[in-house]
Amino acid sequence: MRKILIIGAGKSSSYLIKYLVDKSQSENLQLTIGDVNIDNAKTLVRHNPEVNIIHLDVFNENSRKSAIKNADIVVSMLPARFHIEVAKDCINFKKHMVTASYVSTEMQALDEEAKANGLIFMNEIGVDPGIDHMSAMQVIDSIRDKGGKMILFESFTGGLVAPESDTNLWNYKFTWNPRNVVVAGQGGAAKFLQESQFKYIPYNRLFRRTEFLDIEGYGRFEAYANRDSLKYQQVYGLDYVKTLYRGTMRRVGFSRAWNVFVQLGMTDDSYTIDDSENMSYRDFVNAFLPYSPTDSVELKFRHALKIDQDDIVWDKFLELDIFNANKSVELKKATPAQILQKILMDSWTLSDNDKDMIVMYHKFGYELHGEKHQIDATMVAVGEDQTYTAMAKTVGLPVAMATLAILNKNITTPGVQIPISKEVYTPILKELESYGVVFNEKKVPFLGYNPLNI
Amino acid sequence: MRKILIIGAGKSSSYLIKYLVDKSQSENLQLTIGDVNIDNAKTLVRHNPEVNIIHLDVFNENSRKSAIKNADIVVSMLPARFHIEVAKDCINFKKHMVTASYVSTEMQALDEEAKANGLIFMNEIGVDPGIDHMSAMQVIDSIRDKGGKMILFESFTGGLVAPESDTNLWNYKFTWNPRNVVVAGQGGAAKFLQESQFKYIPYNRLFRRTEFLDIEGYGRFEAYANRDSLKYQQVYGLDYVKTLYRGTMRRVGFSRAWNVFVQLGMTDDSYTIDDSENMSYRDFVNAFLPYSPTDSVELKFRHALKIDQDDIVWDKFLELDIFNANKSVELKKATPAQILQKILMDSWTLSDNDKDMIVMYHKFGYELHGEKHQIDATMVAVGEDQTYTAMAKTVGLPVAMATLAILNKNITTPGVQIPISKEVYTPILKELESYGVVFNEKKVPFLGYNPLNI
Repeated sequence: MRKILIIGAGKSSSYLIKYLVDKSQSENLQLTIGDVNIDNAKTLVRHNPEVNIIHLDVFNENSRKSAIKNADIVVSMLPARFHIEVAKDCINFKKHMVTASYVSTEMQALDEEAKANGLIFMNEIGVDPGIDHMSAMQVIDSIRDKGGKMILFESFTGGLVAPESDTNLWNYKFTWNPRNVVVAGQGGAAKFLQESQFKYIPYNRLFRRTEFLDIEGYGRFEAYANRDSLKYQQVYGLDYVKTLYRGTMRRVGFSRAWNVFVQLGMTDDSYTIDDSENMSYRDFVNAFLPYSPTDSVELKFRHALKIDQDDIVWDKFLELDIFNANKSVELKKATPAQILQKILMDSWTLSDNDKDMIVMYHKFGYELHGEKHQIDATMVAVGEDQTYTAMAKTVGLPVAMATLAILNKNITTPGVQIPISKEVYTPILKELESYGVVFNEKKVPFLGYNPLNI
Repeated sequence: MRKILIIGAGKSSSYLIKYLVDKSQSENLQLTIGDVNIDNAKTLVRHNPEVNIIHLDVFNENSRKSAIKNADIVVSMLPARFHIEVAKDCINFKKHMVTASYVSTEMQALDEEAKANGLIFMNEIGVDPGIDHMSAMQVIDSIRDKGGKMILFESFTGGLVAPESDTNLWNYKFTWNPRNVVVAGQGGAAKFLQESQFKYIPYNRLFRRTEFLDIEGYGRFEAYANRDSLKYQQVYGLDYVKTLYRGTMRRVGFSRAWNVFVQLGMTDDSYTIDDSENMSYRDFVNAFLPYSPTDSVELKFRHALKIDQDDIVWDKFLELDIFNANKSVELKKATPAQILQKILMDSWTLSDNDKDMIVMYHKFGYELHGEKHQIDATMVAVGEDQTYTAMAKTVGLPVAMATLAILNKNITTPGVQIPISKEVYTPILKELESYGVVFNEKKVPFLGYNPLNI
């Protein structure tokens, strides 16, 4: 029996657990799931007696160490900041480790020890980061193998609602951590490359510098720039690429409306609002508008943002009921971002029947034999229900597949790593296809940002 | 002889030194000026043999301690962060101290020791902070003495060019630290009170939420909110005031144009621009605009900020020559704010004949015998030349007067303090009048923000 320890059985672990339970007989797996709250794990394994469910507090050193010591490989589905203690134990007890999180500085620092002990510490093998790395590197490697030279790479991901659940004017609901959505883009200018020029977008312009993306069968999306477009330039081997852009996808119109909150300062998370507890939603909005004894909050809002009487963006704010004087914020010492999140959760929380959707769009521009070419690759995954979500599928399946591949010695290169080598991505992308996670690749005319080469 | 040690003889010490030198005979003063660079001190005292000029590095403990030990009172005109070592020595050697800087947490922590030793540590006795405190408290106290109840306090200060030197389209030149002007307003939302409502303005809206102020004989100004309007609420005894607003004054139109830099991200000081050294001014502007192989930087700029063809704001940017492809930034690893500062210094540096101007505007609203009243008080100080500037006058004279008043035991209350007591402000404001620093007070109809009391 090969013993797998999964630490953390939250929202994104449904497919991960299902995959490994389904393979436990054929692959001879002994599964242990540890969490501080074991209810979700119990529901997910459906009282399967062959799965051990244990109470595991990652900060309880004894129980953590004993669980890790007893495993052959450890999957940490905890929030990223909790991985490091697990990782150190994995070094001590010589266990492989898999996470879907970004490689932290502390994690990277374990690289040498992991290598010295022949251990594979696979990270960033969820959806974004994860499937984005794998699907991008597969195309980039194939272009290089043909002798092509990459000149453009753009990559976009979005976590959205499925078309059948797309029932509000924002075309958006919270399918993941609402807080991350409210503070998205804060903390510094977005930086990217366009035709060899560095471009910078401050937070207050981020949601007005979108571009459109069309996905066959799913219509039009828009994308705003991520802060870190250049993060993987070296890792992907794109040092000499002219255009490098990573973005977040939304349905068209979301960003223009969201920008209104940004402009007013309602997404700020750096200070608390006085007496927030006793404010109405209307008071909250009014705190960002000039005082007037007579003018309505609505007119001040329209005037401040120059929203014309017949601008459809207005209905989006009415839909959120932000001008309601009878709904109370109720949060003590809350930041604007926390209050806005609460208001949005009234409208954007998924209903029981709602399904989520993950969309991904890559553009690869390259030169081959003196000609410019472009490949666009798109992927859409739609959730089944609120347990088997597209998010859980695209995060959990690659994690599960990598875990098994390590156990089966199909992945053998040791060290702290992300899934950018053929050894890793080829079998996983192949297997993901059988689960409906398919990239639709097509050659398109090279456009870039300077199609006429002026 | 009473021995005064002045540490730091920079731009703002001309009037300070002149005042004390002029009084040295009649007041029996022995003046010592210490600085790391003694050239400016030499010029300022005009080889007066009775003034000691010493080389003094405030980080050289021995020379600092020996200079302080030898004085009766110490005036620190150093940048605020350097005061604390001087202050600790003043405690040890039992010397009074005067600064024009904000009271830091470290300075405030010395209050008990200062009191225990009968020492006066007078701070914030320049112009802003300084004259603003004194002139405001004089009116506030007189209103209270009459039985009035304060309901509104607004206070505005600006460091500008004198009308005769007001020769550019921005009606602005750097009369003080240019860096502070470029990053003004950053670091958090501005917060203030209007009619008992807390209002918040994020940085990206700050320069679009201005209000107008008229000063007789000097025309119209505008003001944008300071971050810290509520800072002196308790100190001034304004706990129950309905409106409390502090702002910075500019000539009308400055803020709308400045907002363009804010919107584009050109005032950001949090990251460095790649290859800034080899950029032209035009490249710098273009880094904040979308790539285009053909569209001009000018048109992209107009489009991004929605600047119409006939909008006079445009000429302000042309005047700064920001679209020049032949002027090089030359700064290595510079932040946007540093680059913008350099560009502005080309145009906004004072010429030899330029004069500066300090403007201050207070509004006091109060209730007396059931009626609402308002007093507006304005002050304008114009510099004589580039040594005897309005800034040096309004910063240095109150410092000098307070120093002498402490020596003469006209100020006697010990402790770390700011000039808000009658003991301090009454004689100093009176004496400032003889130097032309005069507040023009007039009763105006109470307007507030809710004049009809709706």
